[in-house]
Amino acid sequence: MVLKLYGLPTSPCTTRVLACLHEKGLDYEFVPINLLGGEQKKPAFLEKNVSLITLTFFVSNFDLIFSFILQPFGKVPVLEDGDLTLFGTAITGYIAEKFKDTGFDLIRYGDYKEAALVRVWLEVEAQQYNPAIQPIVYQCVVMPRLGKPSDQKIIDESVEKLGKVLDVYEGRLEKSKYLAGDHFTLADLHHLSYTFNVMKTPYASLFTSRPYVKASWEDISSRPAFVKVCENIK
Amino acid sequence: MVLKLYGLPTSPCTTRVLACLHEKGLDYEFVPINLLGGEQKKPAFLEKNVSLITLTFFVSNFDLIFSFILQPFGKVPVLEDGDLTLFGTAITGYIAEKFKDTGFDLIRYGDYKEAALVRVWLEVEAQQYNPAIQPIVYQCVVMPRLGKPSDQKIIDESVEKLGKVLDVYEGRLEKSKYLAGDHFTLADLHHLSYTFNVMKTPYASLFTSRPYVKASWEDISSRPAFVKVCENIK
Repeated sequence: MVLKLYGLPTSPCTTRVLACLHEKGLDYEFVPINLLGGEQKKPAFLEKNVSLITLTFFVSNFDLIFSFILQPFGKVPVLEDGDLTLFGTAITGYIAEKFKDTGFDLIRYGDYKEAALVRVWLEVEAQQYNPAIQPIVYQCVVMPRLGKPSDQKIIDESVEKLGKVLDVYEGRLEKSKYLAGDHFTLADLHHLSYTFNVMKTPYASLFTSRPYVKASWEDISSRPAFVKVCENIK
Repeated sequence: MVLKLYGLPTSPCTTRVLACLHEKGLDYEFVPINLLGGEQKKPAFLEKNVSLITLTFFVSNFDLIFSFILQPFGKVPVLEDGDLTLFGTAITGYIAEKFKDTGFDLIRYGDYKEAALVRVWLEVEAQQYNPAIQPIVYQCVVMPRLGKPSDQKIIDESVEKLGKVLDVYEGRLEKSKYLAGDHFTLADLHHLSYTFNVMKTPYASLFTSRPYVKASWEDISSRPAFVKVCENIK
């Protein structure tokens, strides 16, 4: 049974999963969802998501599930694999582990030390990197797309925050080619989508001004899997 | 080489790791750290944490590492396994995976579906449950311990938030004995420590008023591993 991904093609949370699927060379069916049109709340979409976990959420607390799965971009990447429905960052971990013998090894399977460092840097991305970069992407990319003004105060605060985070990354990447060690992993992959968006803003210099961060970005963003995902965005 | 855990014996973030170590039946050395006395910033502690990742953080951005690893309780659970140093929620995942054949299987190893649901509920804990329950524990347990007044507004807001989150849990636990399915896993274990603290406050009724949440709490908190950890707290 083919994997089925529901999402918005331009959403960072969706392109992150797409990059993972391409790294693994997996076949999948992509179902574009137009969140701005409220498509994710239409019965047809809900009916497609009838697994235990999704149903529990949708039925029990409609608002909570949306505050949980809606990212700032307002996207809902949902993966269906047979009768299993997943959402959130659990999707890429699932793909990387279930298909560990297919395509590129993203979790350093069997190497407990490197695998642990993948986990550490995934946590750094979720707890430090993402909260700093998301508001910049939202204000500089999403708001203009919606025809709304962006909030310069939020941008300035987030740029300062992201700068501090990137200082840590600069130190890490000076010592280690990739975040978890000598190999590209899910930890690096999780940084691609939001960074891709910031690189199109005046704040790209946050990355280009730090030599090791810059070199890392040029390296990981030129991987064929991500290049293919970016081509589809255009 | 024996695992070495640095932490504060009463901290939820530390007891979470201890519960995991006990579930796996692993030998470990516990090094108590007194954060209130600033022990985690003393050279002796820093010298013990000289692995690549820790050093990168400590050296590159001293403040950031502390804002990252310091939990609201001000604890630093750090695990050393040989030359590998880990912090954050990555610790339990590492233990559960490296020692998958020892003690209780906490990650449903080899069952991709259940393993994925473990990941989903770990994410729900981190993104929904923890942000709601942490402020309650901080205001009701930590502040009095520090001889400081607690902020009732923060408590009220967090109690309302936690109530909504627990409605989702009630629906989930009505359909499934444990969060990820028929078996106790790391997903359940991650909820133990903060809940243990709230159960000693007037807000225990958030849990006891929801039959399935209540039954689940009575079940998972009576596991020998966690009972042993709680005895040590006393």
